[in-house]
Amino acid sequence: MILDKINSPMDLKNLNLDEMNSLANEMREIIIKKVNTTGGHMAPNLGIIETTIALHYVFNSPVDKFVFDVSHQCYPHKILTGRKNGFINEEDYQKYTGYTAPEESPHDMFKIGHTSTSISLASGLAKARDLNNENYNVIALIGDGSLSGGEALEGLNFASKLNSNFIIIVNDNQMSIAQNYGGLYDNLALLRETKGKAENNFFKTLGYDYLFVKNGNNIEKLIEEFQKIKNVNHPLVVHLITEKGHGLQQATDNKEKFHWIMPNELDEKPEITTNECYTSITVDYFLKKAKQDSSFAVVNAATPGVFGLSKEIREKLGKQYIDTAIAEEHAIAMISGMASNGAKPVFCIMSSFIQRTYDQLSQDLCLNSNPATILVYWGGITESDATHLTTFDISLMCNIPNLVYLAPTTKEEYLKMLDWSVEQSDFPVAIRVPSTELISVGAEDKTNYSILNKYQITKKGDSVALMGLGNFYYKAVEISKDLEKEGINATIINPKFITGIDVELMEELKKTHKVVVTLEDGELNGGWGEKIARYFGDSDMKVLNYGSHKEFSDRIPLNELYTKYRLHNELILEDIKKAL
Amino acid sequence: MILDKINSPMDLKNLNLDEMNSLANEMREIIIKKVNTTGGHMAPNLGIIETTIALHYVFNSPVDKFVFDVSHQCYPHKILTGRKNGFINEEDYQKYTGYTAPEESPHDMFKIGHTSTSISLASGLAKARDLNNENYNVIALIGDGSLSGGEALEGLNFASKLNSNFIIIVNDNQMSIAQNYGGLYDNLALLRETKGKAENNFFKTLGYDYLFVKNGNNIEKLIEEFQKIKNVNHPLVVHLITEKGHGLQQATDNKEKFHWIMPNELDEKPEITTNECYTSITVDYFLKKAKQDSSFAVVNAATPGVFGLSKEIREKLGKQYIDTAIAEEHAIAMISGMASNGAKPVFCIMSSFIQRTYDQLSQDLCLNSNPATILVYWGGITESDATHLTTFDISLMCNIPNLVYLAPTTKEEYLKMLDWSVEQSDFPVAIRVPSTELISVGAEDKTNYSILNKYQITKKGDSVALMGLGNFYYKAVEISKDLEKEGINATIINPKFITGIDVELMEELKKTHKVVVTLEDGELNGGWGEKIARYFGDSDMKVLNYGSHKEFSDRIPLNELYTKYRLHNELILEDIKKAL
Repeated sequence: MILDKINSPMDLKNLNLDEMNSLANEMREIIIKKVNTTGGHMAPNLGIIETTIALHYVFNSPVDKFVFDVSHQCYPHKILTGRKNGFINEEDYQKYTGYTAPEESPHDMFKIGHTSTSISLASGLAKARDLNNENYNVIALIGDGSLSGGEALEGLNFASKLNSNFIIIVNDNQMSIAQNYGGLYDNLALLRETKGKAENNFFKTLGYDYLFVKNGNNIEKLIEEFQKIKNVNHPLVVHLITEKGHGLQQATDNKEKFHWIMPNELDEKPEITTNECYTSITVDYFLKKAKQDSSFAVVNAATPGVFGLSKEIREKLGKQYIDTAIAEEHAIAMISGMASNGAKPVFCIMSSFIQRTYDQLSQDLCLNSNPATILVYWGGITESDATHLTTFDISLMCNIPNLVYLAPTTKEEYLKMLDWSVEQSDFPVAIRVPSTELISVGAEDKTNYSILNKYQITKKGDSVALMGLGNFYYKAVEISKDLEKEGINATIINPKFITGIDVELMEELKKTHKVVVTLEDGELNGGWGEKIARYFGDSDMKVLNYGSHKEFSDRIPLNELYTKYRLHNELILEDIKKAL
Repeated sequence: MILDKINSPMDLKNLNLDEMNSLANEMREIIIKKVNTTGGHMAPNLGIIETTIALHYVFNSPVDKFVFDVSHQCYPHKILTGRKNGFINEEDYQKYTGYTAPEESPHDMFKIGHTSTSISLASGLAKARDLNNENYNVIALIGDGSLSGGEALEGLNFASKLNSNFIIIVNDNQMSIAQNYGGLYDNLALLRETKGKAENNFFKTLGYDYLFVKNGNNIEKLIEEFQKIKNVNHPLVVHLITEKGHGLQQATDNKEKFHWIMPNELDEKPEITTNECYTSITVDYFLKKAKQDSSFAVVNAATPGVFGLSKEIREKLGKQYIDTAIAEEHAIAMISGMASNGAKPVFCIMSSFIQRTYDQLSQDLCLNSNPATILVYWGGITESDATHLTTFDISLMCNIPNLVYLAPTTKEEYLKMLDWSVEQSDFPVAIRVPSTELISVGAEDKTNYSILNKYQITKKGDSVALMGLGNFYYKAVEISKDLEKEGINATIINPKFITGIDVELMEELKKTHKVVVTLEDGELNGGWGEKIARYFGDSDMKVLNYGSHKEFSDRIPLNELYTKYRLHNELILEDIKKAL
C-alpha cells in the first residue's frame, strides 16, 4: 500500500502521479469501509480525496494553513496528516472526531462543525499573519452549499479586500446537503457551463481574482492549477468542480442520502419502517394540514432529510414547502414576515443550529410577536461531538421575551401544541420535539395552550415535588416510584411551558412541600430550572436543579455524563433524601 | 403649507410635481428642526425624503407593503402616514419611536431597529401573499451599508427565486454609518460609474432584474422610474443613488457625524471635551498598545464613532484598525482566527448588537477557546427603544462555555482586566465596559484575573451579603449604608466575574450570612444572579435577585422601570428586612 508510507503531508511530496492515484484509490476504499461501519459523512469526503492530495502535495501544511468549512470533508485530510489509523484499524475507528480538531493535529486550525465559518476564520489567520509580517498561504475550503450562510457571505465581502495572500476554494459539487436553493446557484451553474468565462461572475463582483478548475477529481490537473496559485499575493477564488460521492456509484446516484449515512447503509436492504415516531407524526400532520389550508407552509434550512421531508414528501407539499438553503437567520425573519401576513409557517430546525439565529428570534420574530411556529428537534444531553451539542437551546431561547417555548411529553400533547400553535395568532411559539420514543396516552389532549404557563400536576403528593420538563418528565415519574418505596409520596408535575413559571402552583407548593426538584434535558445555566430556584430564593423551599453543566462535552458516553451531572436516578434520590 | 393637506399617502396622489417638491422642502425643514432638538437619525432621513414621496405617490400603502431596513430612514414615511405631528409639534416630538412600529400605524409592517433584516422580512410578506393568492407590491428598502450583513445577504440569495413581485430598493448613499468596507462596495461604485451598465453586476449574479436610478433626490424622475416597475411580476433590484444628508450642508459635508446626532448639534459650537470617560481611556489604551505591539488590533463592525474611534484615531491605528462593515458574525469568527494565530484583537461592540453573534461566540470563538477580547459597551437597563435594549448581553453570553465575561467597577479594574485579557492566551474574554461615570480609586489593580471566578469582598459584615455586579456594585454600596442605619452590618462583594461562581466564598457565606442579594444591570432570566439562587437552592440561605424582567420595554422612564423591577434602594431594603 502506498498509504503505508504516508505519515504526514511531507511524505506525499516523494510520490509520483501514479502513486498518488493509487493512494486516492486506497483512501477511497478505507473511507468507504470505515464510514459504512461507523456511519458518518460519506459523499462529501469521497468527492474531495483528489483535491486533498493535490493540496497537500502543493502546499506545506501546517505552515500553509487550511480551514475546512463545516469539516464534512476532512477525512482525506485526516488520513494524510497522521491519523490514517482511525480509518484503517477498526479498533481506532472512534479515535478521532469526524471534524477538524486542533487537539488531534497541528494541521487542524479550528474545531469546526457548524457551517459557513471558514472564510471568516481563515481571514483572521491571514490578518494575524499580515500584522506579524509573516508569509504563507491561507486557504479556506468551502462547499457550494455552505456559501448561502450569512457568515460565509459576510466573510466573502470582507476578505476580498485583504491585499495579501488569501485563497478560497469553492468546492462546487452542485449540492448542499440536499438541493441548493437561491440565486447564487444559478450563477455557479452559469460559470460551470461557460467554464468560468461568463462575464457576470458572483465572485468577481465581490472583487476576487477567479480561477475556474474543471477537473476537481483529477490529481494531475489539480496539482498543475494549485501550483499556479501558490503564494498568490491577493485574494483569489478557485471555483473547483468536484463530484460528490466520486468513485462510489451508490453515493453519486443518491447524493442526498449519502451525504451522511448510518452504519451499514451500503450493505443492508432498505428497510421500510412503519413505526410511528415524533418525526413521522410531524410529517403526517404537515401533509394533512397543507391539504386543508393553503396558507400553511413547512420551512427548513437545507436539512430536509433529518425531518423526514423526503423528496416524495417535498413534492406532495409543493409550494407549501420552502427550503431557504443554509440560511437560518433568513428563515426566522422570513417566517416572521409570513406569520404577520396571514400565512402559517412551521420552521423545522435542529437544536444545535437554532443557535445561529438568536438576534432574528429576538428582533425579527419575538419583538414583533408574530405567530410563527418553530419545531426544535433533538434537544437534550447526548454523546455528540462538541460541535453539535443539543443542550443549549433552552437557555438560548427561554430568556427571549414574548416567545412561548413548549415541552411536550406525549404524542397527544405534542400534536395538540403543534396545531394550537399553527392556528393561534398571538405568540411566536417554539416546540421542543421530544427526543424520546413516541409515547401515546390514547386520550386526546384538550388543554388550551393560550392560557400560558399552566403546569400540570399528574400525581398529587406531599413534601417533594418532582418537575420533569419534556424528555425528563419520565425521569420524574421513575424517581417518584423510587421515592414511594421509601415511603415518600411525591408530587409529579409536567411543566409543559419552558418560558414561564406557574406562579399559582408554586405558591401552592410552598404550603405543602419542602423540596422542589427540577429536571431538564439541557444546560442548567440560564435554563428553566434556575428560574424556579430564583422564584423560591426568598422562601424556605429547598430547590434541587438537574441538567447538564456549562461545558462543550465531546463524545462522552451518556452514562459518564449522567454521573458527572448527577442525573442518575439513584443520585437524585440521594440528594432529595438529604434535602428533606 | 402643503403638509397641512397630507394626512395619509392617499392625499399625496392629488398633488402636482411643484407641490410635491414644496412638500419635500417642508418635510426637510421639520425633520432638521425636530432631529436637532431631540437628537436622532439626521442624514439618512434627509437623503430619502424624495424617494419616500415618490414611493407613496406611485404605490398604495398599506396594500402595497414597505419594509424599511433598520428604519434609520423612516421619518419621511412617518410624516406621510399620519404621524406628522410628531415632527411638527414640539410637545409631540417624543410621541413616536424613531423606528417603524406597527402599533403606531398600519403602514409600518414591523418593529425594526437592527440592521440587514428587511429583505428576509419582506420575502416572508411576499411568500404569504403568494400562498394566499393575493396581488400587491412588496418593497424592501435597504441602505448600501446594511447590505454587508449576513442576514441581508442570505435574504438576497433567497428572494431572487421568488417567482413573483418583489422589489428591493438599494438606497446607495455611498456610506454605511461610517465608510463602507468590502468588495461589494467596489461593485456598487463600478455600477454608479457605468450608470448601471457594467456587465459584472452583483445583483444580476444573484438572479435579479436590475434597474439603475441615478436621481434618487429628484421626485419627477423617481416617479417615472417607480411607475415603470410597479406591479413587476418578478424580483427586481432598484439601485437608487441618493445623497446622504441631502439639503443640509453640514450633513453632506460630514455624513458620518450626521448619521445620528445628539440634540443641538447644528447650533452649538463643537465642544472639546477633555473629561476622561470609559470610552476615552479605552481609546488611549488602544493607541498605546498598538504602538508597543504590532500584533495588537482594534476591530469593530461599522460603528467606530460610538467607541470614540474617530477618523483621526483610525488613521493613527493604521492597519491595526479593522472595520468589518456591518458583519458582526464575521467579526467574531475573524478575531478568533486572529487570536489563534498570534495576533491580539480587541473587538468593540454595543450590547444590543452582540446578539447578532451567538453561534459565532459559541462555535467559532469559545469552542476553540481562542484568546480574543470583546468589549461590550453600554450594557444595562435604560430608557431605550425596544429595538435597542441593552439588558440581554449577560444572559446571552454568560451561559456559553469557556467564555470569561468580566464586570469591572473602576477605571483601574477595567484597565487591568483589559490588558490582562489582551496579553493572556488561555481564554476568550469579554468585558462589560461600565456604563457609569468613570470612577477611579487611584491605586493600581494588581489582581491576577487568570485565577477565574474569584469575587472580591470589599467590606466584611454579617447576616446580609450584597453582591453588586459591574454597574450595580455602587448600588450594593449604597444599600449597605442604608442597612447600616438600621444596625445591619452588610458584607459587600464585587463579583467581577459574570461567568462563574466563587464557590469557596459562597460556602463561607453559608456559615455566617442569612441573606444573599444579587444586583445586576440586565435581565434576571438566564443571568448571573439566578446561578447564585441555584447554588444556594438546597441550603437555608435566602437569595434575593435583582435585575430587569424578561420584556421588551419601550422608552419607559428609568424611574418607572426601577419601580417595576423593585430596583429602587428602598424597595430592596424592604425586601431584605422581610427576608431577615
